[in-house]
Amino acid sequence: MSQAFDAVDVISAKRDHEELSDGQIDWVVDAYTRGVVAEEQMSALAMAVYLNGMSRREIARWCDAMIRSGERLDFSGLSRPTSDKHSTGGVGDKITLPLAPLVAACGVAVPQLSGRGLGHTGGTLDKLESIPGWQANLSNEQMRAQLDDVGAVICAAGTGLAPADRKLYALRDVTGTVSCIPLIATSIMSKKIAEGTGSLVLDVKVGSGAFMKDVDSARELAETMVALGTDAGVRTVALLTNMQTPLGLTAGNALEVRESVEVLQGGGPPDVVELTVALAREMVTGAGVDGVDPADVLASGRAMDVWRGMIRAQGGDPDAALPTAAETHTVLAPADGVLVRLDALAVGVAAWRLGAGRARKEDPVQAGAGVELHAKPGAVVRGGEPLMTLHTDTPERFERALEALEGGYTLAPEGSRPDLLPVVVDRVA
Amino acid sequence: MSQAFDAVDVISAKRDHEELSDGQIDWVVDAYTRGVVAEEQMSALAMAVYLNGMSRREIARWCDAMIRSGERLDFSGLSRPTSDKHSTGGVGDKITLPLAPLVAACGVAVPQLSGRGLGHTGGTLDKLESIPGWQANLSNEQMRAQLDDVGAVICAAGTGLAPADRKLYALRDVTGTVSCIPLIATSIMSKKIAEGTGSLVLDVKVGSGAFMKDVDSARELAETMVALGTDAGVRTVALLTNMQTPLGLTAGNALEVRESVEVLQGGGPPDVVELTVALAREMVTGAGVDGVDPADVLASGRAMDVWRGMIRAQGGDPDAALPTAAETHTVLAPADGVLVRLDALAVGVAAWRLGAGRARKEDPVQAGAGVELHAKPGAVVRGGEPLMTLHTDTPERFERALEALEGGYTLAPEGSRPDLLPVVVDRVA
Repeated sequence: MSQAFDAVDVISAKRDHEELSDGQIDWVVDAYTRGVVAEEQMSALAMAVYLNGMSRREIARWCDAMIRSGERLDFSGLSRPTSDKHSTGGVGDKITLPLAPLVAACGVAVPQLSGRGLGHTGGTLDKLESIPGWQANLSNEQMRAQLDDVGAVICAAGTGLAPADRKLYALRDVTGTVSCIPLIATSIMSKKIAEGTGSLVLDVKVGSGAFMKDVDSARELAETMVALGTDAGVRTVALLTNMQTPLGLTAGNALEVRESVEVLQGGGPPDVVELTVALAREMVTGAGVDGVDPADVLASGRAMDVWRGMIRAQGGDPDAALPTAAETHTVLAPADGVLVRLDALAVGVAAWRLGAGRARKEDPVQAGAGVELHAKPGAVVRGGEPLMTLHTDTPERFERALEALEGGYTLAPEGSRPDLLPVVVDRVA
Repeated sequence: MSQAFDAVDVISAKRDHEELSDGQIDWVVDAYTRGVVAEEQMSALAMAVYLNGMSRREIARWCDAMIRSGERLDFSGLSRPTSDKHSTGGVGDKITLPLAPLVAACGVAVPQLSGRGLGHTGGTLDKLESIPGWQANLSNEQMRAQLDDVGAVICAAGTGLAPADRKLYALRDVTGTVSCIPLIATSIMSKKIAEGTGSLVLDVKVGSGAFMKDVDSARELAETMVALGTDAGVRTVALLTNMQTPLGLTAGNALEVRESVEVLQGGGPPDVVELTVALAREMVTGAGVDGVDPADVLASGRAMDVWRGMIRAQGGDPDAALPTAAETHTVLAPADGVLVRLDALAVGVAAWRLGAGRARKEDPVQAGAGVELHAKPGAVVRGGEPLMTLHTDTPERFERALEALEGGYTLAPEGSRPDLLPVVVDRVA
């Protein structure tokens, strides 16, 4: 870094609605990573960005500076093209589990670096860790070998990728600067671009269970991220998808693994199958592979073979029984009617409180905890029949989980129809 | 504190343009003082306040919470009423030095807690410390005894007053959140109200050498502070005064003490005399003392007697020779003309760079350094005659001081008149 800037000058410029220069952005991201810009200075800058925004040019430069704060993986030497997927996070979003082996079975290598859950949204690694023996941590060499051998890997991101983002993400979490499109977009895309994928599909969730509550803000986030990916030479497409209601019939770690295996076996809930195939088509096309329809590959059982190989390669036993929770509690329908609303956030918070999620990074999660749905919006239900089953090892949690579900669903007279977004709302490319 | 809040909730509320509740303000100020709310959280909140503002009610509660973070002095047991003065800071602003003894000579006790300088504005304590032997630190008991005995005391504020403000002030300095009226007003007024004065006069500077560059923002700051004082039961008045050009003919520690003594001896520059008498009249009236005109008291020499007693009581020798700088450099008028502009900020920065001020709290200052003016705006000057003399112990500083003065003054053809604010621009009560 040849030119030194002053942190107060950079903060004051953004505070006063000025555009930051490339030099200012490069310096502040690098100096923050090195600890020269203090946490309290970066949080003031993050709040100024939150309230005053960033231009497209500033966002691109900020993302690039975060990528340059660490290492950048390179999978260009693999025999197959690579594609990766990122979801902005939702309730019951287990799509990565069937998707990665399905896309690998279509001839595309899938290097999927994932995270753990925080709050009401689950984490892919937490889900897979409910499989006995499965290990999340791989070296870069192990990851590359597994991609060559099996074609798909889902593992924890190493600490060498975008360290500026790791630091800034933790800071935003405690300073009220999370829900800001420039900061969300650059956080996601700096990591994904540093991961070295050739193409990328973004699953931008819309609805109560997602960061983005409405279609317009989800589209703005999607457009921002697609532009960042494209500018960085990564073929990037985004789907806006429904997160008004949970995906599938389960929210919880082992519960979601079970449902994912059902999808790979040719069954599973229709919305999970539809979204898995839609995202797989985007990934396969983005990777430049023609003439292969993921729907056919899913039906052939070849994706299931990749799943078994992927789990085994990371020490897991794909045939082992999955953990189940010690206690269950069934929520009954209070009357006859049509379930017209089942709120994703309410179900997500209930699963979290049952032990499926964590409030702090260092908390453990329960493998068997979560919510199992017996009806989805549109279903006709009878009074006294089960609506959902709550699972936990610690039954004292039922009360607060039930509180979370209060007002979380609506029964309407028979003949009513839910007013729901489709599974895939829109496509941004 | 009976109710606990969450820092992220408080930050997010202000970020989202909500008014903070009394409970939220009390909690966040207290928790910050105790270290429960982290520096990076308070800086995000300060930036949100900077950009989204605070209502009058929020400002009053914030100020009150800062006062309650520490002790509150009580001078109600003195035989005389008390009055205090606060200046928002300017270049050549030595007014406290003649003012405190003058007001004491009028029968009003003056408990003047002062600070050291930072940046281009000087600090009252730095100026007085150029007097051989003079000590800034007094206990509360010593302060009260001196008020009883001499009637005036100028000393360092103890660490027990408004500790929340001390912490927040240091944070704002490094996070680009200084120049914000709600935060400036509550910082000043929390300290002044905690000091226990019965009445208060605020000298709000306007112009290039001041925080407030224009009359409208200075008036807004003055009105905010007057309301805070009045609400807290302190009779409070503000004068808006000219800081386009330096006050008097000197900027620098010992140089300003010398000029202050000249005023107490019945001489001194007219603007310094005018402002000293104007502020003294407000303080005397505010304290409820009638029938005494400070102009007469100044002429009588009684203020000089109080000065000598005040300096002696704090270990200083009022008859000792003041330190002088080792080196001087004279700036000559480049041509004949009328000096129509002499910029306060340029002179302040030059004095600072010569060694009269400090860049960091822990830096020392030079007692003899500074700028001595030979002409003020409106003066007719001849080419080759001295415009100002620079003083320093470290002559390598002349070059950067001269750089600061480049473009800092304007000579116009004879017959021209400067377009200047009056010494006292307005009064807010």
